[in-house]
Amino acid sequence: MILYDNQSSGNGYKVRLLLALLGLAYTRVEMNVDNGETRTERYLQLNPNGKIPLLDFGDGRRLAESNAIIFYLAQDSHYWPEDPWARAQALQWMFFEQYSHEPSIAVARYILTHLPADTPRRAELPRLTEKGREALGIMDGHLAGREYFADGGFSIADIALYAYTHVAAEGGFDLASYRHVGAWLERCAAQPGHIPITQV
Amino acid sequence: MILYDNQSSGNGYKVRLLLALLGLAYTRVEMNVDNGETRTERYLQLNPNGKIPLLDFGDGRRLAESNAIIFYLAQDSHYWPEDPWARAQALQWMFFEQYSHEPSIAVARYILTHLPADTPRRAELPRLTEKGREALGIMDGHLAGREYFADGGFSIADIALYAYTHVAAEGGFDLASYRHVGAWLERCAAQPGHIPITQV
Repeated sequence: MILYDNQSSGNGYKVRLLLALLGLAYTRVEMNVDNGETRTERYLQLNPNGKIPLLDFGDGRRLAESNAIIFYLAQDSHYWPEDPWARAQALQWMFFEQYSHEPSIAVARYILTHLPADTPRRAELPRLTEKGREALGIMDGHLAGREYFADGGFSIADIALYAYTHVAAEGGFDLASYRHVGAWLERCAAQPGHIPITQV
Repeated sequence: MILYDNQSSGNGYKVRLLLALLGLAYTRVEMNVDNGETRTERYLQLNPNGKIPLLDFGDGRRLAESNAIIFYLAQDSHYWPEDPWARAQALQWMFFEQYSHEPSIAVARYILTHLPADTPRRAELPRLTEKGREALGIMDGHLAGREYFADGGFSIADIALYAYTHVAAEGGFDLASYRHVGAWLERCAAQPGHIPITQV
């Protein structure tokens, strides 16, 4: 398997983290997302949506969308719940992550860590901060009195939400106000086989 | 089952359409999304994310996120593929829908059909149009030479993408340039049990 990835990407990290938890071997290709490397004619042949991560199985099959990739890799493991209702809960939180969490928290982090200090995109930060805080508040409320997002223990829903939440401070978010989220981040990092986002 | 819904919502329509295809009975509650009805204290108790659709099973279980709801309802039907790879493909396209399609095509349609003609949000339209066309182009390329988004026939991935694509003209998109999308829309509408978005 070849993983087209970017080290700083939380979406890429979801896949790297699950591959580590599952003990699966793969080749990683680092893609520069700032200089158009994911928009070249050659890369668009692999992923017409021009994004990382992309997992290439080497037999003609390729899968995009981080949350679909971790679903596929987890299907036969305990990271994909057995119970149909728990599966629906896991997917609910994974769609929440891509619609209501990543577009604010990951984008704020991208503006602050990838773009120059005088970028006009800093004007987006107040709205991103407001939306990101709303997402963190929803997560904190859900985690009050429960250990993980879906029933049945640590799952790919936790992996999906951990990726950008644990580096939210880089997007200007103060996690101290969300104590249930803080405790959950520690439980996620304590999973056997866990690797940090910096490990590639 | 109680479906909290809005008649004009493509996300709500996904659930209504699948419920009709499956022949399942439910009660529908129309929510006004323009006057804050989904942001009341009472509704936030049901869905802390303050969005429709929400499916309430009446036994304490509630599910948000349109694509998670249609996954749950389809799990034992042929609308959720049997093959693990086809399942991953279906989810890839459902995450594509929520990240790269709905935020441009549905939002352009919302601005043009729900907001006054002098709304400052019309300034977002050029960028939404560009992103929406990119999404439609990716769909058109994928559908060249295949009938549906995932292997194995019509699935919840098609339902998810049909919802806002078939009304994209209301968001200012000209579908005539995407002939594979046009043919696929006809195949979707020809499914036994199909209902239009106007039917509630």
